[in-house]
Amino acid sequence: MAKKYKVGVIGVGFIGPAHMEGIRRLGFDVVAVAEATQELAEQSAERLLVPKAYGDWKDLIADPEIDVVHIASPNFLHYKHAKAALEAGKHVICEKPLAMTSAESGELVRLAAEKKLVNAVNFNIRFYPLVQDAKARIEAGEIGDKLYIIQGSYLQDWLLLDTDWNWRLEPEFGGELRAVADIGSHWMDLVTFVTGTRIESVFADFKTFVPIRKKPKKKIDTFGGKLEVDMDYEEKPIFTEDYAAVLFKFDNGARGVMTVSQVSSGRKNRLFFEINGSKSSLIWDSEIPNQLVIGHRPEPNQLLIKDPSLMTQAAQWSASYPGGHPEGFPDTFKQLQTAVYRYISSGDFERKPDFPTFLDGHNILVVNDAILLSAKENRWVDIEY
Amino acid sequence: MAKKYKVGVIGVGFIGPAHMEGIRRLGFDVVAVAEATQELAEQSAERLLVPKAYGDWKDLIADPEIDVVHIASPNFLHYKHAKAALEAGKHVICEKPLAMTSAESGELVRLAAEKKLVNAVNFNIRFYPLVQDAKARIEAGEIGDKLYIIQGSYLQDWLLLDTDWNWRLEPEFGGELRAVADIGSHWMDLVTFVTGTRIESVFADFKTFVPIRKKPKKKIDTFGGKLEVDMDYEEKPIFTEDYAAVLFKFDNGARGVMTVSQVSSGRKNRLFFEINGSKSSLIWDSEIPNQLVIGHRPEPNQLLIKDPSLMTQAAQWSASYPGGHPEGFPDTFKQLQTAVYRYISSGDFERKPDFPTFLDGHNILVVNDAILLSAKENRWVDIEY
Amino acid sequence: MAKKYKVGVIGVGFIGPAHMEGIRRLGFDVVAVAEATQELAEQSAERLLVPKAYGDWKDLIADPEIDVVHIASPNFLHYKHAKAALEAGKHVICEKPLAMTSAESGELVRLAAEKKLVNAVNFNIRFYPLVQDAKARIEAGEIGDKLYIIQGSYLQDWLLLDTDWNWRLEPEFGGELRAVADIGSHWMDLVTFVTGTRIESVFADFKTFVPIRKKPKKKIDTFGGKLEVDMDYEEKPIFTEDYAAVLFKFDNGARGVMTVSQVSSGRKNRLFFEINGSKSSLIWDSEIPNQLVIGHRPEPNQLLIKDPSLMTQAAQWSASYPGGHPEGFPDTFKQLQTAVYRYISSGDFERKPDFPTFLDGHNILVVNDAILLSAKENRWVDIEY
Amino acid sequence: MAKKYKVGVIGVGFIGPAHMEGIRRLGFDVVAVAEATQELAEQSAERLLVPKAYGDWKDLIADPEIDVVHIASPNFLHYKHAKAALEAGKHVICEKPLAMTSAESGELVRLAAEKKLVNAVNFNIRFYPLVQDAKARIEAGEIGDKLYIIQGSYLQDWLLLDTDWNWRLEPEFGGELRAVADIGSHWMDLVTFVTGTRIESVFADFKTFVPIRKKPKKKIDTFGGKLEVDMDYEEKPIFTEDYAAVLFKFDNGARGVMTVSQVSSGRKNRLFFEINGSKSSLIWDSEIPNQLVIGHRPEPNQLLIKDPSLMTQAAQWSASYPGGHPEGFPDTFKQLQTAVYRYISSGDFERKPDFPTFLDGHNILVVNDAILLSAKENRWVDIEY
Repeated sequence: MAKKYKVGVIGVGFIGPAHMEGIRRLGFDVVAVAEATQELAEQSAERLLVPKAYGDWKDLIADPEIDVVHIASPNFLHYKHAKAALEAGKHVICEKPLAMTSAESGELVRLAAEKKLVNAVNFNIRFYPLVQDAKARIEAGEIGDKLYIIQGSYLQDWLLLDTDWNWRLEPEFGGELRAVADIGSHWMDLVTFVTGTRIESVFADFKTFVPIRKKPKKKIDTFGGKLEVDMDYEEKPIFTEDYAAVLFKFDNGARGVMTVSQVSSGRKNRLFFEINGSKSSLIWDSEIPNQLVIGHRPEPNQLLIKDPSLMTQAAQWSASYPGGHPEGFPDTFKQLQTAVYRYISSGDFERKPDFPTFLDGHNILVVNDAILLSAKENRWVDIEY
Repeated sequence: MAKKYKVGVIGVGFIGPAHMEGIRRLGFDVVAVAEATQELAEQSAERLLVPKAYGDWKDLIADPEIDVVHIASPNFLHYKHAKAALEAGKHVICEKPLAMTSAESGELVRLAAEKKLVNAVNFNIRFYPLVQDAKARIEAGEIGDKLYIIQGSYLQDWLLLDTDWNWRLEPEFGGELRAVADIGSHWMDLVTFVTGTRIESVFADFKTFVPIRKKPKKKIDTFGGKLEVDMDYEEKPIFTEDYAAVLFKFDNGARGVMTVSQVSSGRKNRLFFEINGSKSSLIWDSEIPNQLVIGHRPEPNQLLIKDPSLMTQAAQWSASYPGGHPEGFPDTFKQLQTAVYRYISSGDFERKPDFPTFLDGHNILVVNDAILLSAKENRWVDIEY
Repeated sequence: MAKKYKVGVIGVGFIGPAHMEGIRRLGFDVVAVAEATQELAEQSAERLLVPKAYGDWKDLIADPEIDVVHIASPNFLHYKHAKAALEAGKHVICEKPLAMTSAESGELVRLAAEKKLVNAVNFNIRFYPLVQDAKARIEAGEIGDKLYIIQGSYLQDWLLLDTDWNWRLEPEFGGELRAVADIGSHWMDLVTFVTGTRIESVFADFKTFVPIRKKPKKKIDTFGGKLEVDMDYEEKPIFTEDYAAVLFKFDNGARGVMTVSQVSSGRKNRLFFEINGSKSSLIWDSEIPNQLVIGHRPEPNQLLIKDPSLMTQAAQWSASYPGGHPEGFPDTFKQLQTAVYRYISSGDFERKPDFPTFLDGHNILVVNDAILLSAKENRWVDIEY
Repeated sequence: MAKKYKVGVIGVGFIGPAHMEGIRRLGFDVVAVAEATQELAEQSAERLLVPKAYGDWKDLIADPEIDVVHIASPNFLHYKHAKAALEAGKHVICEKPLAMTSAESGELVRLAAEKKLVNAVNFNIRFYPLVQDAKARIEAGEIGDKLYIIQGSYLQDWLLLDTDWNWRLEPEFGGELRAVADIGSHWMDLVTFVTGTRIESVFADFKTFVPIRKKPKKKIDTFGGKLEVDMDYEEKPIFTEDYAAVLFKFDNGARGVMTVSQVSSGRKNRLFFEINGSKSSLIWDSEIPNQLVIGHRPEPNQLLIKDPSLMTQAAQWSASYPGGHPEGFPDTFKQLQTAVYRYISSGDFERKPDFPTFLDGHNILVVNDAILLSAKENRWVDIEY
């Protein structure tokens, strides 16, 4: 990767700066940021030490110096921004969800293919080294020739209280799904990536435990934790799910279930999966990401501590540091970008990407549609990709 | 408990001796065992140092010296043995399942009430000290005034291979349900006990991953683990579930889901639950039973190590040893029996029992019926107790 | 073991009843208890459902019905009781410490040998199934042909506060050593048992962090935890160690270090060891006793969950319950007694015992002498056994 | 920090690129690297996307564009490079050890003071968010007004085999100490930082378990893990310690002990400490760095998952990501640099630095001298700072 790519980032709230850290760790230049107004863009550019500030994202996309556009804007703008970037001939790394509807995301998939541009969705959790290792182990047949059970949960507590508020609670900005879209989508992308499966059919149960919330009259940050602030509220009825349990049938005969919740006290941001094959199991917890349990029947279980020299060869690249040197959430951004920019550098866009593409982002939206329908109609719903 | 109770035990395979250890730790006498034949009974009596051996269980039940009968016979005999013991005027502690059908178990509930005899089902997992503590914390309102989510799993690997065989695989001895009946029933009894809830409605998905098994032509033990034995087999189709996922609606508005499996490599016998309330959470794992995680939103989680001085007062009696002295599976038998014999000693059988009764055993069978129906008909089934 | 042994127990405070549970689980009869007065003895006998009560321990020892005497009296009486029991021709299982001085314990070793009686010291921690397994793995060469490092700690918090009081704090009852004698002795016995080594030389550092304590004017229980009681105190200077760190040279070239403390908040009763060999490591924590970590260099570590079918064959007998059924502190009493009574039953007292004998109890006292000397003189002290 | 600092890095083997990632994440420019030869420097500069490449480190130091010099050269060159950088008027962030002798490091401390330049030693482990939190809790008195015990270990296995080779094994490059200098120095810096103590006196025991090693005739990488390479060897006697145990007396009356080893199978890079105060305890493990155990006597222990909203206010800045988003080893570089560059930006160099300075690096070398002397003379050695 001898080229020093020049990158533009649209949206630098919580997740945009995480993208920027990854870009910069790779030695590339963030040459421009775009924000909702020129004033905000300039403040951000100064704070984040970026040369150019755009108050209009269209100008960033049009900037000829920029090789790749990262989209970290509010969810409801992803589709518009991604579409415009592709049309301007830029490679795109888009935050999830790729769009607000599967119709939109399907359009982006087609457009990217037509334009022959590199397109990625930031399902960053795939890039924990031991997640890459888990996938490589399954591909190598280590857990057996059949997959049996794929289950787990993604639990948070940041929306526990009726005083917790965030734009994701409002369907017009966050969509008709909440816990499923925000965190369930990560879980489903992750386990289908790791196991190389597709979800064939879903059955869902939803519940909104906090049916009325107090919306503050002024803006607050995501993930406010226990920090309480005195402010004015208005009461808002909530229609999106705090909790969902979804049963799965996978295309290879495996079954499974996922529990997602944003009201589980003490769970800050915990994605957990357990995958049982006909021989062995793989168990992983995103809050202790540098450990992978490999469960066995005829011998003791194994507890793999992240260590490139103990990882499957195919996954070693994803661990940047030696054994026992923990890698974390920010490193997943770097590793995802390593894969994407390596692919861009190769120039060969026919090759199967080793990162999540717009198609992966689209597929999750298709599954989400089925989950929503199932929850409404109380029946198994088959997925049509 | 100044009285040295005299106890008879029907069936001394795997679980009968576990009952006997509990009885003896309390200082009571196991005066007789019954087995399928006089020869077997005598061998067991000699090995287990028990004075009397009955080749016919009816003789044990008729023995006037015996105060209490423990039933640890094969599942399909529980009903017959329990009924006869009650009719003979004995108090009964019966292994689970209480019966093969809810019709039978309902009959036992009525008979026990009519006879005014003490009746218990050995849902022993309730008696881990920190399970008692979890219940006491919920009763005291520590996790909030509302229950939100009750989820978890009970996973084993002892039936992973098609060479694994056990009588529980045969419907005539084990019943039409397997994973749900064997281990799911423990999970459901446990969480409803801990939370003080009832299951109102269920949706189930079943799968038999090993559809044909090799039945050895001679008898083998339960829980054989990796010990392989050379023997003759015959192929048997299997109709009971290796795996079940069950969605729950609870009577107080809580929701939840349970995954049970007997084919999860590396999981030896792991019951896990996580209970989220409107304030805090309780998380427990039966393979690390002396730790209870109490999850909080506004402060660090707590990790309670079993210690009577740190436990809720109502639960302290259930810890027989000081802090940091682990108690285990056999201790749950002792503690359950402590509760039952304490109740017998009190003579007051109007008082609400603090142990699982025939009614609890019956209720689980009623829920199991609904789960089976749901799995067959792919729909939510309401429970009618 | 067809014989139903008849057993007498001297002292039934905290640890005597733990012995009794073990005896009874094996199917043997506790026929008598002895306490300091006839009144106390009778109260205990009634509470514990024991037929005979002796106010004078000499009468228990003289009771011809008794096959084996268990000594669970206060530490300073062990020597006197054990000596008399041996002289009366009884087999003895004695609580640790075997005596208050190594001169006394040496005398008991000689007397037991002379009388050809079975003699055991209750170093019960050896009998956790995975400790037995660890020993068997080392004997089988699994961690390599050389032992490198043996280190760990035994930490408690029950003497943290200056209001914590116990007879062990008074040298006349507890001896000149405290943390080392109470808990360090368990650690040293355990690791030398597991590794098959002897301690050759020691260097110790002691500290008394709570130099003055408030002795209540009336008697209180051991392990009071947080339960606070209003009472009258008198101030007492404390001369025994709250903390000790001891460096070791072992006879096979291994080195190591042990930290013991009774003032470590949050540590209820945690014995931890890590043993590094020239190939692999073994790591064990008494508060999670059903897990053993086997550390490897060229492959992932292993996490063995207690499961007879996964344990070394030589250790399988020590696990009474199948995989994933946790065993705890009380089970170690049963297993130790299983070994001792099996040995008694065999009648062959020339065979090397597979349980801790008076010689083991004596050896630890010899090491303790050296540790005390080292702490006083700030120098390495060689052990002369 | 509106200024976009321009930074030069001397040495880009394993640890230099880790510095670079931190620098770039902060938005600063790495404008030059220096390596042993012009060819190596150019290769590294191209690979790492750095504009300027110096084959002579003096040219980097003399480069007027460079604001700050990071020194990541081999240990024996740190002194020379740091001295020259200070003399050239550059601020310096130096890898540990600061020098090969305390005479040299003392000189650097004096020179930095004289030149009024910002000087830092990369004791990066201090900057795990929960380490910062631990320090803040102790400063706030949360574990009590007295410190009792400070103990733990730093264990690795990368030098287990006699075929493991590294320049650190050769005294001329690595110094007369090995395990103590490489990893013990991190442990001692960390616990004295966290507790605000000084080490007053030490007693050490050393052992070289692998006395002869096979040195490959061609160069190999550090941390090779299990990757075996066929190559020619020569046998080399080893004089530095594989293992050390060091007893400590701290200036406030606390005691403690540290075990360090580079031959502990299964321990990849595990720094562990437990700090017991007169009220509570803090327990931390660098391989699970996003969890801090807070041990209590009168209530359940706490298990703090890294979450700025649950951390002590003084430490919140050090967590860049929300609760449950793990941070790792690379993040510690970023956070250390955040502190240093924030200090540089402030312009006020009289203020007490909130990062490890040359004085901290020097103090550790002084302690190391005492440890070496103690190990040689088998006596307690007092430290004279």
